[in-house]
Amino acid sequence: MKGALATRAPAEPVIDLGHDVEPQAVDEAAFLLASAFPHFPPRTVFACVVDPGVGSAREIAVLEAAGRTFVAPDNGLLGLVVERLGAQEGRAFLAGREWYSGASATFHGRDVFAPIAARLAAGALRAEEVGREVPLAALAPYPAPRPRIEGRRGLGRVVHVDRFGDLVTDIAPPPGRTARRAWLAGREVAQAARTYADVEPGALLVYEGSFGTLEVACRGGSAARALDARRGAEVEVEFEGA
Amino acid sequence: MKGALATRAPAEPVIDLGHDVEPQAVDEAAFLLASAFPHFPPRTVFACVVDPGVGSAREIAVLEAAGRTFVAPDNGLLGLVVERLGAQEGRAFLAGREWYSGASATFHGRDVFAPIAARLAAGALRAEEVGREVPLAALAPYPAPRPRIEGRRGLGRVVHVDRFGDLVTDIAPPPGRTARRAWLAGREVAQAARTYADVEPGALLVYEGSFGTLEVACRGGSAARALDARRGAEVEVEFEGA
Amino acid sequence: MKGALATRAPAEPVIDLGHDVEPQAVDEAAFLLASAFPHFPPRTVFACVVDPGVGSAREIAVLEAAGRTFVAPDNGLLGLVVERLGAQEGRAFLAGREWYSGASATFHGRDVFAPIAARLAAGALRAEEVGREVPLAALAPYPAPRPRIEGRRGLGRVVHVDRFGDLVTDIAPPPGRTARRAWLAGREVAQAARTYADVEPGALLVYEGSFGTLEVACRGGSAARALDARRGAEVEVEFEGA
Repeated sequence: MKGALATRAPAEPVIDLGHDVEPQAVDEAAFLLASAFPHFPPRTVFACVVDPGVGSAREIAVLEAAGRTFVAPDNGLLGLVVERLGAQEGRAFLAGREWYSGASATFHGRDVFAPIAARLAAGALRAEEVGREVPLAALAPYPAPRPRIEGRRGLGRVVHVDRFGDLVTDIAPPPGRTARRAWLAGREVAQAARTYADVEPGALLVYEGSFGTLEVACRGGSAARALDARRGAEVEVEFEGA
Repeated sequence: MKGALATRAPAEPVIDLGHDVEPQAVDEAAFLLASAFPHFPPRTVFACVVDPGVGSAREIAVLEAAGRTFVAPDNGLLGLVVERLGAQEGRAFLAGREWYSGASATFHGRDVFAPIAARLAAGALRAEEVGREVPLAALAPYPAPRPRIEGRRGLGRVVHVDRFGDLVTDIAPPPGRTARRAWLAGREVAQAARTYADVEPGALLVYEGSFGTLEVACRGGSAARALDARRGAEVEVEFEGA
Repeated sequence: MKGALATRAPAEPVIDLGHDVEPQAVDEAAFLLASAFPHFPPRTVFACVVDPGVGSAREIAVLEAAGRTFVAPDNGLLGLVVERLGAQEGRAFLAGREWYSGASATFHGRDVFAPIAARLAAGALRAEEVGREVPLAALAPYPAPRPRIEGRRGLGRVVHVDRFGDLVTDIAPPPGRTARRAWLAGREVAQAARTYADVEPGALLVYEGSFGTLEVACRGGSAARALDARRGAEVEVEFEGA
């Protein structure tokens, strides 16, 4: 993919984002992308490829929003970016098989998405030339359950396990509220804290992490190992505060 | 290595290629390099270092071909690039101990290959200044068996296992032919398909992959895990078609 | 972090250094940093973040030395850079909570260190504007024991295990001396050699590695696996020579 990018947009810097997404995990990639994109400069073009359906009939999605451009398979990978935009304006485009001719059947990242993204970044192609404009709601939605807030309870899932073994959930505390307790698979696991330094070494804590959602971590260790927990595990949280 | 490159060629973008090569696997690196280089822009300089013989008498190879430049230990790492060039023109150079003075005995990537590659990329050194010109055939050959086509059978090996657990073989289907069945270690393992979406979730398939050779994969899973297979495993394929 | 860098210093190339540091291992990162920095060009700004105490009261350290600039939590991460500088001149600065407002409690890499480093690199901030100047000795020292040389013996630790399974120690041979024998956890493990090619395949060797310290490796294999050894293991070496 980096060769395909360098060939068509030699002057554009390339940043690797998300090499720690698990294979085929569209929901994990969608979460990380929606969390990360605001930290990148305007005019960034995101070439997003987690694509279990490569070679099938799924289309190519291009989204222009918040000053950035996203190119991805239309499989829900952009679902949380769209959700996060809320009422902000954006334009969406879908394109299909016309871009697949000459491409390998299994590596559209290299043969389709990187070339489109590079040409968009280099100004050699415009989004409206990639495909037909569609409403934002026409893009495939996020392909996994969304968290729910029920009174003082938040119910969600572990959507990402980072290299420290921190369990990142999709539960964002409502304004003015913080987590008091957390359960993983029905078992109470962690005390609330603001950061690692607030608890003893080896203790498990739940806190609002850098993705803006709650995380369960182990000070100086791996919560994933301590709790034998993986991506997808169900999490319940009790809030306190207004 | 990146520091050594940045010091001598600060204006040249650097792309990491092949950090998932297994330690010491010259054959795997040779295969990935020969598959990848055409996707990189002309004038790319490839600093290639898989070097089990570092510190021994092996020489330094520089190859100019297909508009690109390759710098590598002369241990067969460039063997498949040369093979892929076929009748295309190229120039090869070999150099020796004169480049090792002042270098560490174990990290020629940082101390020898990166500095040469950076200076070639920056225009501060020409290939003919690195060493003596030699025929392409004087470069060390690919250090592992090559696949064989015998009638409707292809016999080869797994040369790379990617992060999805796909088993990439070195068997390229002859023109007009496609794989019908595949055996791994004598056991029939996979049905032919064009892409993952053509088979049921969990099924094993054999298809022509993005390297131009046959791959065995598991839809939505890892063929390496399902078959307990590794790099080096013997693969046999039956073709159909003209 | 890369987004935060690109936003504030879009024209500066970014190099990833040290993604193979173990989580929370300040001593390992300090060792790798002190070994690597001289290979990077002058004017490089190092954004260094291994930060088990994130969210606590630890301060932000900025060090200008040897033509480079280092930004890091003041937890000893710069301890070996300072030690390596010896009598060379340098300027150190410490800053505190004024930089944390608006930052997440757990990801100061993205929210504090990358922004400071990027603005320093882009010339939009000067080190003396980050915090108050302090003597170099005021920076937190390296947080682990340092190796000792006692006559013909060197006593130290494995500070890094590389991807080949080589055991990198912190023992630098005194001038004119080379290792003759090495013990790991009291057991003699390796013969002295200059490089891998000097021993039989599968043999263990001790040699002066590319960090300038002694390493224990296994030719064509992994010393870490062969010896079941990890980072932190105690190492003893007998020297020969003047």
